[in-house]
Amino acid sequence: MFTKLERTKVFRDPLYGFITVDYKIIADLIDSREVQRLRRIRQLSGVSMVFQTAEHSRFTHSLGVYQMANLVCENVEGMDTISEYEKIVFLCSALLHDIGHGPYSHAFEHTTLENHENMTVKIILNPNTTVNKILTRASSTLASDIASVIAHDNRFPLIESLVSSQLDVDRMDYLSRDAYYTGTAYGHIDYLKILRSMKVVSNKLLVRASGVHSIESYLMSRYHMYFQVYFHPVGRAYECILESIYKRIKDLYLERGYFSDSVRAFLNVLNDSNDIESYIEIDDAYVNGFVKAFTKSEDPILNKLSNAFMDRHLFSYIDLNDEPDEDLVEAIKEKYDNENKKYFYYDVSVSAVAYLHAKKSEIYDIKVLLPNGKIKSLDAYSPIIKSLADFSKTIKRIYYFED
Amino acid sequence: MFTKLERTKVFRDPLYGFITVDYKIIADLIDSREVQRLRRIRQLSGVSMVFQTAEHSRFTHSLGVYQMANLVCENVEGMDTISEYEKIVFLCSALLHDIGHGPYSHAFEHTTLENHENMTVKIILNPNTTVNKILTRASSTLASDIASVIAHDNRFPLIESLVSSQLDVDRMDYLSRDAYYTGTAYGHIDYLKILRSMKVVSNKLLVRASGVHSIESYLMSRYHMYFQVYFHPVGRAYECILESIYKRIKDLYLERGYFSDSVRAFLNVLNDSNDIESYIEIDDAYVNGFVKAFTKSEDPILNKLSNAFMDRHLFSYIDLNDEPDEDLVEAIKEKYDNENKKYFYYDVSVSAVAYLHAKKSEIYDIKVLLPNGKIKSLDAYSPIIKSLADFSKTIKRIYYFED
Amino acid sequence: MFTKLERTKVFRDPLYGFITVDYKIIADLIDSREVQRLRRIRQLSGVSMVFQTAEHSRFTHSLGVYQMANLVCENVEGMDTISEYEKIVFLCSALLHDIGHGPYSHAFEHTTLENHENMTVKIILNPNTTVNKILTRASSTLASDIASVIAHDNRFPLIESLVSSQLDVDRMDYLSRDAYYTGTAYGHIDYLKILRSMKVVSNKLLVRASGVHSIESYLMSRYHMYFQVYFHPVGRAYECILESIYKRIKDLYLERGYFSDSVRAFLNVLNDSNDIESYIEIDDAYVNGFVKAFTKSEDPILNKLSNAFMDRHLFSYIDLNDEPDEDLVEAIKEKYDNENKKYFYYDVSVSAVAYLHAKKSEIYDIKVLLPNGKIKSLDAYSPIIKSLADFSKTIKRIYYFED
Amino acid sequence: MFTKLERTKVFRDPLYGFITVDYKIIADLIDSREVQRLRRIRQLSGVSMVFQTAEHSRFTHSLGVYQMANLVCENVEGMDTISEYEKIVFLCSALLHDIGHGPYSHAFEHTTLENHENMTVKIILNPNTTVNKILTRASSTLASDIASVIAHDNRFPLIESLVSSQLDVDRMDYLSRDAYYTGTAYGHIDYLKILRSMKVVSNKLLVRASGVHSIESYLMSRYHMYFQVYFHPVGRAYECILESIYKRIKDLYLERGYFSDSVRAFLNVLNDSNDIESYIEIDDAYVNGFVKAFTKSEDPILNKLSNAFMDRHLFSYIDLNDEPDEDLVEAIKEKYDNENKKYFYYDVSVSAVAYLHAKKSEIYDIKVLLPNGKIKSLDAYSPIIKSLADFSKTIKRIYYFED
Repeated sequence: MFTKLERTKVFRDPLYGFITVDYKIIADLIDSREVQRLRRIRQLSGVSMVFQTAEHSRFTHSLGVYQMANLVCENVEGMDTISEYEKIVFLCSALLHDIGHGPYSHAFEHTTLENHENMTVKIILNPNTTVNKILTRASSTLASDIASVIAHDNRFPLIESLVSSQLDVDRMDYLSRDAYYTGTAYGHIDYLKILRSMKVVSNKLLVRASGVHSIESYLMSRYHMYFQVYFHPVGRAYECILESIYKRIKDLYLERGYFSDSVRAFLNVLNDSNDIESYIEIDDAYVNGFVKAFTKSEDPILNKLSNAFMDRHLFSYIDLNDEPDEDLVEAIKEKYDNENKKYFYYDVSVSAVAYLHAKKSEIYDIKVLLPNGKIKSLDAYSPIIKSLADFSKTIKRIYYFED
Repeated sequence: MFTKLERTKVFRDPLYGFITVDYKIIADLIDSREVQRLRRIRQLSGVSMVFQTAEHSRFTHSLGVYQMANLVCENVEGMDTISEYEKIVFLCSALLHDIGHGPYSHAFEHTTLENHENMTVKIILNPNTTVNKILTRASSTLASDIASVIAHDNRFPLIESLVSSQLDVDRMDYLSRDAYYTGTAYGHIDYLKILRSMKVVSNKLLVRASGVHSIESYLMSRYHMYFQVYFHPVGRAYECILESIYKRIKDLYLERGYFSDSVRAFLNVLNDSNDIESYIEIDDAYVNGFVKAFTKSEDPILNKLSNAFMDRHLFSYIDLNDEPDEDLVEAIKEKYDNENKKYFYYDVSVSAVAYLHAKKSEIYDIKVLLPNGKIKSLDAYSPIIKSLADFSKTIKRIYYFED
Repeated sequence: MFTKLERTKVFRDPLYGFITVDYKIIADLIDSREVQRLRRIRQLSGVSMVFQTAEHSRFTHSLGVYQMANLVCENVEGMDTISEYEKIVFLCSALLHDIGHGPYSHAFEHTTLENHENMTVKIILNPNTTVNKILTRASSTLASDIASVIAHDNRFPLIESLVSSQLDVDRMDYLSRDAYYTGTAYGHIDYLKILRSMKVVSNKLLVRASGVHSIESYLMSRYHMYFQVYFHPVGRAYECILESIYKRIKDLYLERGYFSDSVRAFLNVLNDSNDIESYIEIDDAYVNGFVKAFTKSEDPILNKLSNAFMDRHLFSYIDLNDEPDEDLVEAIKEKYDNENKKYFYYDVSVSAVAYLHAKKSEIYDIKVLLPNGKIKSLDAYSPIIKSLADFSKTIKRIYYFED
Repeated sequence: MFTKLERTKVFRDPLYGFITVDYKIIADLIDSREVQRLRRIRQLSGVSMVFQTAEHSRFTHSLGVYQMANLVCENVEGMDTISEYEKIVFLCSALLHDIGHGPYSHAFEHTTLENHENMTVKIILNPNTTVNKILTRASSTLASDIASVIAHDNRFPLIESLVSSQLDVDRMDYLSRDAYYTGTAYGHIDYLKILRSMKVVSNKLLVRASGVHSIESYLMSRYHMYFQVYFHPVGRAYECILESIYKRIKDLYLERGYFSDSVRAFLNVLNDSNDIESYIEIDDAYVNGFVKAFTKSEDPILNKLSNAFMDRHLFSYIDLNDEPDEDLVEAIKEKYDNENKKYFYYDVSVSAVAYLHAKKSEIYDIKVLLPNGKIKSLDAYSPIIKSLADFSKTIKRIYYFED
C-alpha cells in the first residue's frame, strides 16, 4: 500500500485543466531536485528560436506525461486489472522518463555519446540522488523496476508499451503540448477518444477497431509535427552552433588537459558519465553561462562560435530536396576543408516514417481488436497505414557557417 | 465600381473572430431569402444524431466560406492582380455556392435526381429570385459569371479552383467549422499558414514548397473527417429512413397521382426541378413537418417509416470491413425480398482518397512552386502523397430495418 | 439500486470532451420524446438573428447540465455523502430541468401565461409522458421528488441549490456553452476551479475562501453575458414580432372561436395548459410552419407580422439609456394609438444585478467557508460583491414597428 | 519614409495566429541584443512556481504588444489620421516598452531602487546600445520621442494612452497571454470587439457606447488576474527569498566593499544605474547562476537563503484577510527581531481597484462616445463602474521564513 496525500494536490494545466496528485510518492518526486532541474531545460531546445512562444520546459511536459498516465489508469478498460504496485511503477516511469535529458539535448548527446535514456536510468539507480532515495524508501524494488521500464528490459511489457512505443503517454502529451505552445494546428490529437478506444487484454494493449481512425490521425499528426516543428531548419541551425561549441571545448580539453572552471561540470561528465552530481548541475542556464564567458575566449574558433550563439548568427543552410543549384552546393562544400568542416559545416539528414511497420519491428506494432474478437496488426487492418508501408521521408540539408 | 457600405458590417464568428462585409452587394445577398433559407438547413443533416452538438446551419458555413474568400484576397500573394469585378465574382460565388442544397441533402438528391450544384446555378440564373435581382442590378453579367464558376465552365479557372477544387475556401471552412461544432480534433487545419504559402502566378494558384507540410496535413484532416464524421454509420442510418420516406412518397404519387397538401412543394420539385419557388419552400422544418403528419398515414410503409424517423428507430447496420459473421450477413440479406429491399434495405459503399492524383484528374492537381522557380505537381513533390497514389479506402455496410 | 449500463455510453461535447452516461435511467430519459423534442428548440431563440452561430438547441444544453451534475458528483468534496437515490434525483433534475420550454420561450410564456418551470413539473408528473413512465418504472417516488426539486419545494435543499440558485449546474453550463457558440469571450468560467472549491458540509453547499475569486469572476461573466448576448437589442426585436403574432392569434381566436388547423396544438395549450400532448407538439418548426402559412392570412395584422417575421423585417428600437433625442422619442410614442400599441409597440425594460444579496434573498446567498472553519455570506466576505450590494443595471428601450 | 521589408516577416503566435513585421526598423529592433535579452527573462517571475506552465518570456510578450499595436493601426477607426512617423513611434514604443525589466523584476526594483520604465528610457537613449543605434540611424529624433512616450511626457498623448493607460496594448496582450499560459479562464478579453469599438477623434482615444460592455468585462478580467495570478501567495513567497538575497548581497557589499566576481554586473548596477552594459548582462540565468554559487557561501544568511531558493524552501505566509488566529500571528511577529526581520520577515500588502476613477486620475479615465456625439467619462456612463467608485481591495499577508 502506497501512502495517499490527505488532500489531492493539483497543478493547473492548460491542456488537462488540472493535473492531480493523490500519492505522496509522486508529490515527493515532483519536489525532488532532479525533477525540479527540468524546469531549467527547455523542451524544444533550438526550436524556440523559430517558434518563439515554445518556451516550455521539460518539467511541464513531465507533469503532463504523468497526468496522461493518470488518465490511462482512469479511462482505459482493463487497466484496473494491474496491481497498485504496477500502477505506481507506471506513474513514476511516466513522471521520470525525461530526467536524464541534458540542455539542448541533441547536441549534448552527440558530444557526451550517452543517450538520455541511459542517463535517466543512471539517475534513478544512483543511491545518492533524491529520486532514488524517495523510491527506495517506498519500496526496495521500485527504483530498479522503473529503471527496467525505461531501459525496455521487457520485464513489464504492458507498462513499457504505455511509456514508450508508437502510442504512448509521452508522445500523446508532447504532441498536444508542443502544438499548444508553438501555436501550430498539427499536433491536435484526440487523446480522450484514443484512451477510450484502448483496452488491456491479458496484459496487452489493444485498440478497438472503432478507434483506428483516431490512431491514424494521431500518427499523421506526429509525422507533421516532425517536419513542421522538430526538424525545422532554423531550429537545427541554432543547434549546429552549440554542437560545434561542445565539440571545440572537448577538443581543446583533450589537447590541453585543462580548462576554465566555468565548464568543470561539463568536463566531469565527458570524463565520466556516471558523475551524476555534475550532470545535475548542467542545465540551459549553465550552458548559456559558459557560452557567454567564451565570447571573450582567446581560442579563435571558440570565440567565433560563442559570439555567433549569443548574437544568433546562425548557420546558413540549403535544402537539398528542393533542387538547389548544384554548382552552388559544390562550391560551398569545397570551401570547407577538413579542419573547417569539423566545426563549420554539417551534412544533416533527418528521416521519419508515418508508422514503423510490423515487419520492421514487431514489438512496436499497434494491435487492433475487431468486434468479432480477432486481433490484427494495424498494418493489416488500416488501408492507409498499409499504403505507407514502404514510405519514409528524408530531408537532406547542408549547414555551413559564413562569417 | 461596386458600392461599399458606409461602415463595415460585422458578424461574430468563433472561428475567425469577425466576418467583415464591405460591399453592399454582399450585405444584400446575405439578407436575401434564398440565403436566409440556409439558416433552416443543417450543415450536417443526420450527423447531428451522433454528434449532437453539430447543429450548425448551411448559413453559418456560407458566411464562413465568404470570409475565407475575404482572407484569400487579403493574404494570398498575387491576389491583388485580379480586377474588382473578378473579386466580386469570387466573393459572391463563395457566399452562394450552397444555396441549391435541399434538406438532408444526400437523400434529397437521390430522390430528385438533381445535384445541388445544378440547383445553385438555377437559383442564381432564375430572374424571379432575390439573389438574381441583386446580382443583375449590380451588373448585367454577374449572375451568369457566378453561375459559370459554380458550374465549372472553365471561364474563370483561378476563381473556380479557389471555390471548388481539392484546396478551396469551401473545404477550408467546413473542415474547421465541423471540427469546432462536433468537438473532434480532426479538422484543425492551419489555414493562415496555407493562405500565406499560396501564390497566384499568371492567374494560376500555386503553393510554395515551404507550405507543403500544411497542405499534406490539411489533406489528411479531410480524409479523417470523412471517415470519423461525414460517413459515421449512425448518421447514415438516419438518412436511410429519410431516403425511404422520400422514395415512398414519390412512388405513391406516381401510382396515385394525388397526395396530401403537406408535400405539395416537394412534389412540384419532383415534377419540375425548375420550380424554384417550390424548391425554396423546402427546408428541414418542411420535411420534419410532413414526416410528422405521415406518422398517421394510412399507407403502412409510409406510416412505419415516419414513426421510425420521429422515434429515432434507426436502421441497423453491419460493417462489412470488420469481418462480420458471413452467415449472419447472408441471413439478413435473404430476409429482404425485392419489395422490402426497396425501402428497408441498403447496400452502402463509401470511398475516399487522401488525394486525387494528377493522373486521375489533372485539373484538380495542386501545383507546388519550388524556391528555384520550377513548378511540380504535388504528387511528384511530396513523398507521402506519392506513396498514397493508389490508395483509396472504401467502407461497405449493409443497412436494414428491423421492426 | 439503479441499473447501470453494461458499457458507459458517451456523447462528444466540445466543452467537456465527453459526456458520460452510466445509469440506464439516464440513457432512457435522453431517448424519451420529451427530451428529444428539445433538439428542435433553439437555446437562444431570437439571439441567433444577431449571433448567427448560436444555433445550438436546448437538447445539447440539457446534456451539458447533466454532465455538469456528473462533474459535481465526481469533484465536489462531500458529495459522496449523499445517497444513490439522491444522486439520481440530482442527475435527472439536471437533465430534465428545461423540458417545459416552448419555442421562443420568452414570447411563448407571455402568451400562455405559464412559465416553463411549471410546464416542466407538469410533464414530469403527467402519467402519459414517456419521461414519467421511465421515472416511475425505476421508483414510485422519483417523479414527484424530481418535480419537487424543480418546483423549489425545499424538500431537497442541497439538490435544489445545485440545480437552480445563483451558482448551479444550469448556469455553469449555459454560460460556457453560449460563449462557445456565440464566439464571445465573456462566458468563460473556470468551472473546474469552482467545483474544486465547493464543499458539501451537513447537506449545505459551501465555497472555500480560496475559491472566491473564481466565483466573483463567474458572477461578472454572467452579468456581461446578460447585457452582451441575452438582452441584445436585435434578438429582442425579433422576439417582439413573435410575441405580437402569438397575441394576434390569441385575440382572433377569442373573438371568433375558430382558427386554422395549423395552430390547433397552440390553441389547445392556450385553452388548457395541462394538455401536454399538444404542448409536446409545439417546437420551433411548428411555429415557423404556422407563421409561414399566415403570410397569406386574410387578417391584415397577422399577415403583416408574419411577413415581417419571414423577411426579418424587425422592430426598430431606441435605447433610452443613450440619451436619445427626446422629441423623436415622443413623436414615436404618439404615433402608436392604443390598438396599434398592442401589436406594434413595446416598452421593454430589462434589469440584472451582479449578485442577489443576502438581504434580498437569504436562500440564494452563497456561503463562504473560511480556513478557520467559520462561514460567512459572500456579501460579507468579498469586498467587490459588497460594493455592488445596491447595484443593478436597467436598460430601457422602446421597440416600434415601421412599415 | 521608413523602409519596408521586401517580404513581410512573420512569427507564429498562438494568440494572434501570426505576428507580422513590415518595417525594416522593427525587424532590426527585434534582432537587437537588448530585445533578444528578454528571451531570458520570464514574464511572470515567481508565478511559474505556482502556475508551472507560465514559463513564457518578456520577449514573446513584447512581440505580442507590438502585434496588438499593429492591430490597433489596422482596426481602430481614425488611426489612419496619424502620420507614418507617429505610427513608427507607436510600434517601436510597444515593442520596446519592457526592455528595462530586470530578472524577477519586483524584487530587483526594490533593491536597485530604479523602476523598469526609467531603465527602458535609459537603454533607448544610451548611444552605445544597439537599440539606440537602430533608432538613430532611421531618424535623429526617434529615440528621444519613443523615450518621451515611455516616460509619459505628454508630448504624444494619444500614443501614450495607447501604450500605457488603463486600456492599452500592453495590458491587452498580457491579460490574454498570461491566461493562455497559466491555463486560467480569467484573462480572456474580447480584444477584437474592443478595438472595433475604439475611435480616435481629434487625437483622442474614445470608446463607443456600444463597446462599453466589453470594456467593463476587460476591467473585471484584469482585476481577477491580479488576485488569482499576479498576487498569488506562493509566487510572492518565492520572490521574498530573492528580495532577501539581493538585500544581503547589497549589505555585504556596502559593509565589505568587495564581493565575488559572480555578481560584478549586479554590483555595477547598484553603484550606477547608468551602467547599461552591466545591466544588459543581468537576466534570469545570471541570477540563478550566482544564487547557485552562494549555496556554498560562508556568510550564513546568504548561504541559508540561497539554499532555500534552490530547494524551493519557500517563505510561509498567513493571509490576514482570512481571520487567522491572532495569537498565532502575534507569536510569529515576535519571533522575528530586527535583524531577522530584515531578511526573514515581510509584511506584504497588495491592492487593486477595478477602475481608477476620473476623480483620482483624470488622465487615465476612459472616455465614452455616445450615439448622439456626446462624450462622457466611463465613471458616469457605466452603472457598474460607478458603483465601484470607492472600491479597492487590499490583501495583507505576513511572510516569514522557518528553518
